[in-house]
Amino acid sequence: MSKNAYFPNVSGISYEGPQSDNPLAFKYYDANRRIAGKTVKEHLRFAVCYWHSFCANGSDPFGSGTLNHPWEAASNPLDRAKRRLDAAFEFFGKLGAPYYCFHDRDLAPEGETVKESEANLRTLVSLAKEQQKATGVKLLWGTANLFSHPRYMNGAATNPDFRVVAHAAAQVHAALEATVELGGSCFVFWGGREGYSTLLNTDMKRELDNFGKFLGLARDYGRKIGFQGDFLIEPKPMEPSKHQYDFDAATTIGFLRHYGLDQDFKLNIEANHATLANHTFAHELQTAADAGLLGSIDANRGDSQNGWDTDQFPTNIYDAVESLLVILGNGGFKHGGINFDAKVRRNSIDLDDLFIGHIGAMDTFAYGLEVAVALIESSAIAKVRSERYRSFAQGAGLDFTRGSLNLTQLRDYAADLPAIKAESGKQELLENIVNQYLFRGGKG
Amino acid sequence: MSKNAYFPNVSGISYEGPQSDNPLAFKYYDANRRIAGKTVKEHLRFAVCYWHSFCANGSDPFGSGTLNHPWEAASNPLDRAKRRLDAAFEFFGKLGAPYYCFHDRDLAPEGETVKESEANLRTLVSLAKEQQKATGVKLLWGTANLFSHPRYMNGAATNPDFRVVAHAAAQVHAALEATVELGGSCFVFWGGREGYSTLLNTDMKRELDNFGKFLGLARDYGRKIGFQGDFLIEPKPMEPSKHQYDFDAATTIGFLRHYGLDQDFKLNIEANHATLANHTFAHELQTAADAGLLGSIDANRGDSQNGWDTDQFPTNIYDAVESLLVILGNGGFKHGGINFDAKVRRNSIDLDDLFIGHIGAMDTFAYGLEVAVALIESSAIAKVRSERYRSFAQGAGLDFTRGSLNLTQLRDYAADLPAIKAESGKQELLENIVNQYLFRGGKG
Amino acid sequence: MSKNAYFPNVSGISYEGPQSDNPLAFKYYDANRRIAGKTVKEHLRFAVCYWHSFCANGSDPFGSGTLNHPWEAASNPLDRAKRRLDAAFEFFGKLGAPYYCFHDRDLAPEGETVKESEANLRTLVSLAKEQQKATGVKLLWGTANLFSHPRYMNGAATNPDFRVVAHAAAQVHAALEATVELGGSCFVFWGGREGYSTLLNTDMKRELDNFGKFLGLARDYGRKIGFQGDFLIEPKPMEPSKHQYDFDAATTIGFLRHYGLDQDFKLNIEANHATLANHTFAHELQTAADAGLLGSIDANRGDSQNGWDTDQFPTNIYDAVESLLVILGNGGFKHGGINFDAKVRRNSIDLDDLFIGHIGAMDTFAYGLEVAVALIESSAIAKVRSERYRSFAQGAGLDFTRGSLNLTQLRDYAADLPAIKAESGKQELLENIVNQYLFRGGKG
Amino acid sequence: MSKNAYFPNVSGISYEGPQSDNPLAFKYYDANRRIAGKTVKEHLRFAVCYWHSFCANGSDPFGSGTLNHPWEAASNPLDRAKRRLDAAFEFFGKLGAPYYCFHDRDLAPEGETVKESEANLRTLVSLAKEQQKATGVKLLWGTANLFSHPRYMNGAATNPDFRVVAHAAAQVHAALEATVELGGSCFVFWGGREGYSTLLNTDMKRELDNFGKFLGLARDYGRKIGFQGDFLIEPKPMEPSKHQYDFDAATTIGFLRHYGLDQDFKLNIEANHATLANHTFAHELQTAADAGLLGSIDANRGDSQNGWDTDQFPTNIYDAVESLLVILGNGGFKHGGINFDAKVRRNSIDLDDLFIGHIGAMDTFAYGLEVAVALIESSAIAKVRSERYRSFAQGAGLDFTRGSLNLTQLRDYAADLPAIKAESGKQELLENIVNQYLFRGGKG
Repeated sequence: MSKNAYFPNVSGISYEGPQSDNPLAFKYYDANRRIAGKTVKEHLRFAVCYWHSFCANGSDPFGSGTLNHPWEAASNPLDRAKRRLDAAFEFFGKLGAPYYCFHDRDLAPEGETVKESEANLRTLVSLAKEQQKATGVKLLWGTANLFSHPRYMNGAATNPDFRVVAHAAAQVHAALEATVELGGSCFVFWGGREGYSTLLNTDMKRELDNFGKFLGLARDYGRKIGFQGDFLIEPKPMEPSKHQYDFDAATTIGFLRHYGLDQDFKLNIEANHATLANHTFAHELQTAADAGLLGSIDANRGDSQNGWDTDQFPTNIYDAVESLLVILGNGGFKHGGINFDAKVRRNSIDLDDLFIGHIGAMDTFAYGLEVAVALIESSAIAKVRSERYRSFAQGAGLDFTRGSLNLTQLRDYAADLPAIKAESGKQELLENIVNQYLFRGGKG
Repeated sequence: MSKNAYFPNVSGISYEGPQSDNPLAFKYYDANRRIAGKTVKEHLRFAVCYWHSFCANGSDPFGSGTLNHPWEAASNPLDRAKRRLDAAFEFFGKLGAPYYCFHDRDLAPEGETVKESEANLRTLVSLAKEQQKATGVKLLWGTANLFSHPRYMNGAATNPDFRVVAHAAAQVHAALEATVELGGSCFVFWGGREGYSTLLNTDMKRELDNFGKFLGLARDYGRKIGFQGDFLIEPKPMEPSKHQYDFDAATTIGFLRHYGLDQDFKLNIEANHATLANHTFAHELQTAADAGLLGSIDANRGDSQNGWDTDQFPTNIYDAVESLLVILGNGGFKHGGINFDAKVRRNSIDLDDLFIGHIGAMDTFAYGLEVAVALIESSAIAKVRSERYRSFAQGAGLDFTRGSLNLTQLRDYAADLPAIKAESGKQELLENIVNQYLFRGGKG
Repeated sequence: MSKNAYFPNVSGISYEGPQSDNPLAFKYYDANRRIAGKTVKEHLRFAVCYWHSFCANGSDPFGSGTLNHPWEAASNPLDRAKRRLDAAFEFFGKLGAPYYCFHDRDLAPEGETVKESEANLRTLVSLAKEQQKATGVKLLWGTANLFSHPRYMNGAATNPDFRVVAHAAAQVHAALEATVELGGSCFVFWGGREGYSTLLNTDMKRELDNFGKFLGLARDYGRKIGFQGDFLIEPKPMEPSKHQYDFDAATTIGFLRHYGLDQDFKLNIEANHATLANHTFAHELQTAADAGLLGSIDANRGDSQNGWDTDQFPTNIYDAVESLLVILGNGGFKHGGINFDAKVRRNSIDLDDLFIGHIGAMDTFAYGLEVAVALIESSAIAKVRSERYRSFAQGAGLDFTRGSLNLTQLRDYAADLPAIKAESGKQELLENIVNQYLFRGGKG
Repeated sequence: MSKNAYFPNVSGISYEGPQSDNPLAFKYYDANRRIAGKTVKEHLRFAVCYWHSFCANGSDPFGSGTLNHPWEAASNPLDRAKRRLDAAFEFFGKLGAPYYCFHDRDLAPEGETVKESEANLRTLVSLAKEQQKATGVKLLWGTANLFSHPRYMNGAATNPDFRVVAHAAAQVHAALEATVELGGSCFVFWGGREGYSTLLNTDMKRELDNFGKFLGLARDYGRKIGFQGDFLIEPKPMEPSKHQYDFDAATTIGFLRHYGLDQDFKLNIEANHATLANHTFAHELQTAADAGLLGSIDANRGDSQNGWDTDQFPTNIYDAVESLLVILGNGGFKHGGINFDAKVRRNSIDLDDLFIGHIGAMDTFAYGLEVAVALIESSAIAKVRSERYRSFAQGAGLDFTRGSLNLTQLRDYAADLPAIKAESGKQELLENIVNQYLFRGGKG
């Protein structure tokens, strides 16, 4: 098949530098530039998501599809899937994305039976493997779509009907095999239907127990067939469910620890899910990092005025800088990366809009990386922060840290203190420093 | 002192029944009526909160106080505290509230030194003990105010300055002693300043470690001095802090378990805090109950349009019914109860408004109790709910529940199933049933 | 065609009274009961909406349809439309709904051309007219669907492409004719796509000017062909658009007045749209009523935790009481009524769930009507309210009201006043009164 | 008095350029740099607000003051006011702020009587006039504080008690005189208490009528005493009131037009108020500009996770760029300017934090000005936008614009059209362009 079948007007996106006005060129993402010991590409590990980019058609709850992608023209579902795969790899290559991510049902259509679905998936996995080999593009993570089919309307792993739970298990079984076959670094669970519509009909405790059990079985099978990457849970508070069990990072961490899953599972944090849960993206990342459970990120952006997942391309430089500060502070990505769980707007119907969306996102993170590295290397923020905690480094503060004081001893210590002069938190100073580095911009 | 010094126009609130139009009478709260094996009073364990009712003056961020309570007239802080105590017990008695709750600083003023503060508190505790004895009113819970004083502006147990941590410990030390002396059933921690204003200056992990340590020391001291009730944490997501560590029930449960505190600590769930965290009150209660950690409730209501803690009196009957369904399903209160963490509006400046606020709240919960008991006794909801999970009671579903199936066995089971017919969740039916019982109303 | 083709298991919903446990019976909606001078049916003017009840299939942004309605079985779009019409009127009749509402595309499928679409619509209108005649069910309002087709992705009347504006005009042209032909009382505009996705590409002023012009042309044509009812605009702040021009009642009223449309247009207020705009339902209704522009209501309910239009059946009794207080205070409905813009949950897939949803909603409003009438007849609330404004009824207050004082005279009046003693707003008292009447319940 | 009495450690803030790390220097705000025909200072017209900077003490709803400003040390209220004035002008001078803004009660304390309050105000106005003369600092706007005193707890101009309305009039009377005396460019109304706590006790229509009347009287008096600037209304949706009448720009514009006030009144748009009303700052500005009613701005920033007015210093560069695009597109400020209605965080207690907060804000807007001017001069955005509306510039589109087509003619036009190919909205492209210019940064 031609390598120009689906995006004939785009030959490839290259780095042209900040002064370029070419909408189809990178201004900041210079993949092989070295910074802080690695190339930009190695730091950021960008992945394109299959579903928004190649499966979605622009429909929304109030309107039908607006995007008539050429790869959807075939009448047979399996043929469509093959064309979609060709289009996807053509896109990955032209964009220069090192990774991609998929759901089982993105890659291959559901069949009439479990076995037929598995066969379809194996067919496409085999083709994807060839494409990976030919292009060098790798699989960041795979996952099973346990939310689109009507059978999952009451939940997948947490469905009150055991038969549906078993069906979900079958899908995960096959999706794990596909991920291992394709050398995926991670395997993700996003529980869009794992939650409830009303507590009136829900036994939340039982459903969570089933959920914990289900994930444990998936873990066991994955390890058995040789998966060595991270299992990831992607928190989201709601939508489509009224309430989702993996509400936010803290909830999910508590769940993983309670069910003994925290040695194998980490978190995949999405920016838009963070804000839907009324947290900042940075908060969710830091919470995961502090628990040793930061795995990967879904980079996108929501709309503060819209109470649903808008999945816009991440173009907010503050989000990029703040998230990279946490990620770099955590040692960078190991198995995870930056997946663009983002879609062009429903009315962005030109084929080049898909490139433009990704270019803007990649430039934003590339610029953000320069800023974050400069902030870290200057210690401009870290110095102010660590200075605040100096009282725990010696004397009674150190004793407290070591656990050698009881409440009465603390009380006695306080009773003998002279009046305490509180210290400024210096928030405005720190915010100015962020802007200062941000405005100063990138490379020398 | 006269028992009519502060509320001379109210002689006492009595039950007059649903047809009464007397604003200063109960229409539904018939304290000694027996229902579901206990009196209404024993079920609901109502407590009046000291701070909103007797300390607050109606000021808000944009305006000064509107309430000129007669008990605040004394010029000396300790005298004011004594008058406040008299007013409070006069009110408790006239309202017929069996319990009350306080912060150390509500009861007694802060002194110049730790020792002076402790002495002030002991003075007032001794007077409160007499009042309790004379009236039969009991202490539901005590707590330490670790948020009002400027020293806590950067946190109390999580302050970056160890001296402030020690000061907080001193306050908890004294407040625990006061609570034990007064026979309090619970001791509460609400961490209004335990959180952050910006992550830029915050070492969240260290602060949470300190928080866990601090609570453990408090627990140890409480048990040492004979406290046998529940330690309670009250989740709230924000306000005054930008972000509070005890964000919601799930976050707090995860925290308690991680720091080994879940044998002694339970949760105190507040309705308005639940909605600020984007949960329903019932969700937070059920989450706590499922973890075996439902301790007590702060009954109030927020305003869906206002993004702060409005602490209005609880008059929404749905909240009352839904919360009582969880509480009764959990076996009722053990040490906890229903504390009205609620205040009259800033412009409700008549002294009788304070009675009216409490009356409305108590009637709402009393009516709600009738509805909740009727719903439980009829099993109208429980039957629909349990029927949904029937597939886990036998066969492969039971095997799964018992943990005797692996992922491949689940997959094989699913592969052999005929097409699954999904089952209706019957949400509308269940909602209608709630309304039906609610509209049918109370006692025959 | 059989009158039992689609809902064979339901023979008809009748009033059985509060003690009935029959899920398929009314407990409170006694259509012909007289209260406050009219029958309940005449007061409430219930309408079933065509789209949610007969066109929607349960799909959501993350999942495909769950409802396989028997009337959708035909392969030809026009045949499906005819069956849908039969099903709808069978349902209206069995439920006892006096009215219904539709979009052009609910009733008849879009054709390849404007003319074909018009012909399809005329065919179905003719059949609907027969059904109306046969059953006595009437059309509350018609409207044109200017949001589902991809051509409207950038707006309909506010599209930057004039051709799309013209196409929208053609649809309104035909939908107006259909509404007149079927004797509809109102014609509604809901501008789901009249707004923007980003201001960066939007000339808001020009779009609003076009919108005003468009509505004026529709009004002129409607009046020309004999439409004597109300044109209605239905405010909504967002979804599907990022921002919608008809944001809320106040915005829409300002718009109607600015473009000279307020003699012919009124508002159709939806509960869930009110809360998405961060208002209460009652606030939006009162705002419209105060402007003399309250036309009709879309009764449903949202979910405070979910930031999108959940369109649940209205079962919250407070919403019913508060909205009826405004509506009755405004003299009741003239052309408008209570349309249930509500859908059963995606997992409520039993055919009887559709009846159950409507029954709960109708019972809620019927019960609410009893409460609202009792509140009005007792003047329990009105007395407190009017007493607050007594100072404007005489003296300088009356002079001010009449406009005969200038600022200096007001200043002089104030300068001579003794200190002003503020008066309690009595909010808790009024809230208790609402609950008191609500708990006392319906008919004697 | 010494010019170094209150901020002895700061000699003055000067421009040091982007590479400076001095926290007490401007990195981007180069006041006299010329760009787009004016100096930066003339474009931005920065004003310091008196209340947050010199009156507030860091208290919040859960804690007492943290800021012990040296100018508050005097025991007599009038002496405190004089010292505060000295401190303020010392600060204005050292910061290099060309303007300031105040409420009557910021400047001078309320007296026992109207006359005493007026006398206090006149005393301070006279001193402020001297300071203005000595320093060249000007008054951007004055206003009357009609929300802090308990008398206003039920509203000021919309109070149900006429005596309070008259009292509010007296305050406006004096504040207008003060503003005229000091040569203020604008006079602002922010109606923090003009709204309701519950509709149950509120006659909204009457209150709005009174509000319209009141503003008309103020306008008449202002014009009579020679005020030639703009009267401004500052919308805010809520807080402290449950609902405020000046909810947002569209609501306020409708109100001004309805009461015939739109010739004299414009809007003062605050960023944090915009987001509390669920709009973007840019949306509110554009709405005002489109109505010809954009007067001035209150630049600050809120916190998306906190549902109250956090009034943080504006450091978000997107807000700065987007707002300046609207302001420059509207011809720049005439009477208005950029007032920093912002406060340092409660725990930012160092005196230099107040400078740092302002420096960061001024640098952000200065940088934003460069970006906005570059975007405008390149037409990079404007070209894409205007191209979208090209169909209205000729043919039938132009006829429609001119009002010469009726609905039937539009329908006929549409009926004859070939299928319409929708056009991409190019949102991602435009967002990338904004970032591109933003990242490219300022001056050569």
